[in-house]
Amino acid sequence: MPLASGMVLGMTAPPLSSTRRSTPNRTKHRTVTDRAMLYEVLDAGLICHVGVVLDGSPVVLPTGYGREGDTLYLHGSTGARHMRAAAAGIEVCVTVTHVDGIVYARSLFHHSMNYRSAVVHGTAVPITGRKAKLHGLRVITEHLAPGSWAHAREVNAKEYASVSVLALKLDEAAVKVRAEGPNDEPEDVEAAAAWAGVLPVRPTFGQPIPGADLPPGVPVPDYVRNRVPPSGSRT
Amino acid sequence: MPLASGMVLGMTAPPLSSTRRSTPNRTKHRTVTDRAMLYEVLDAGLICHVGVVLDGSPVVLPTGYGREGDTLYLHGSTGARHMRAAAAGIEVCVTVTHVDGIVYARSLFHHSMNYRSAVVHGTAVPITGRKAKLHGLRVITEHLAPGSWAHAREVNAKEYASVSVLALKLDEAAVKVRAEGPNDEPEDVEAAAAWAGVLPVRPTFGQPIPGADLPPGVPVPDYVRNRVPPSGSRT
Repeated sequence: MPLASGMVLGMTAPPLSSTRRSTPNRTKHRTVTDRAMLYEVLDAGLICHVGVVLDGSPVVLPTGYGREGDTLYLHGSTGARHMRAAAAGIEVCVTVTHVDGIVYARSLFHHSMNYRSAVVHGTAVPITGRKAKLHGLRVITEHLAPGSWAHAREVNAKEYASVSVLALKLDEAAVKVRAEGPNDEPEDVEAAAAWAGVLPVRPTFGQPIPGADLPPGVPVPDYVRNRVPPSGSRT
Repeated sequence: MPLASGMVLGMTAPPLSSTRRSTPNRTKHRTVTDRAMLYEVLDAGLICHVGVVLDGSPVVLPTGYGREGDTLYLHGSTGARHMRAAAAGIEVCVTVTHVDGIVYARSLFHHSMNYRSAVVHGTAVPITGRKAKLHGLRVITEHLAPGSWAHAREVNAKEYASVSVLALKLDEAAVKVRAEGPNDEPEDVEAAAAWAGVLPVRPTFGQPIPGADLPPGVPVPDYVRNRVPPSGSRT
């Protein structure tokens, strides 16, 4: 179900923690224990998927976020049900996934995807102190829209009260990477019945679209015009 | 936390069910009750994020899938922990999200994303009958790699035994769409202190990369070469 089977990247730096749930019991060869790769996967995402348990049931919602050091900041509205449930801290699973390619194999079974994923477990805690919360909002904003913090109108009191920022420590995480071609069986390679290879998938940015109420002639700022899409496939 | 605040698309066809958890308590204006839009969002995704509760904790994993009618098929290995837990059916939340654009506003607060998301709740049940399971695998394969089912070597007995297919009915789902420009406050529009607009985000396919063990000269088949990326931004 996690996408399939591949390679392990090199290991450096403080390894990621290994607990039962952060230790994949399959496809161990895809598991990366390099904290730098955790940062890379998290930093390349635009949204994460936050899983919580509400009334005993799983709920998974797309969520804006940002990372600084070993803290992941999650953005929310104080009205959102799962954010209200998080008032005293809430157990979450935060997953960021990049699909980097579609792997066509000679056999149906070895069809796969190239991908990078980070799965973080922990307790997300609301940030209530003004300075710390504004800092969290800044990290989230710089992640979503680098450059905007310096240029856009700052948050006013009403707005400040209506957003939540949760912090999650990157203590328990699993990173998996598949970044290679098809792994066909030798007899299928021999039989050569179908094409095999990878179709890369990459996010791209289109031309900026000015707001309908923006006066004509306002130039697109460099921090928008020159923004580089998140890194794509390694294949 | 769900990404922010916007517009509702037109309604047609059998509406989506509305339960407490599939009825957003915020951003109601983004909620779409059109089943055709649910299909569109699901069909445009390459992976979904499956949330389950394991040992009382949330777990969210990227997963391959496919849709046929009102059934979502989830792909898995029989070795995956959450798939084993699903032997008698497992409560899941399956979420597919497309980020279609980054919304730059005059105020930090109104920064947002354009997106389409589908959140499906229900009990995923393993398919065990041979014919039905192969059919589910076909739906999943046609979703991941259209054309491959007809060309690649079929699944053998060992491979068949090592994969799981779960089926989830599309009975309870919430679809949200934001597809518009920034929603700034009138005084911020007036002040005109920052650029405002949307930076579109689109998935693209790169040039197919032949497998390293593919003999030279094997042409890339049409179903790979001409594959069209999932539909992107509506902005």
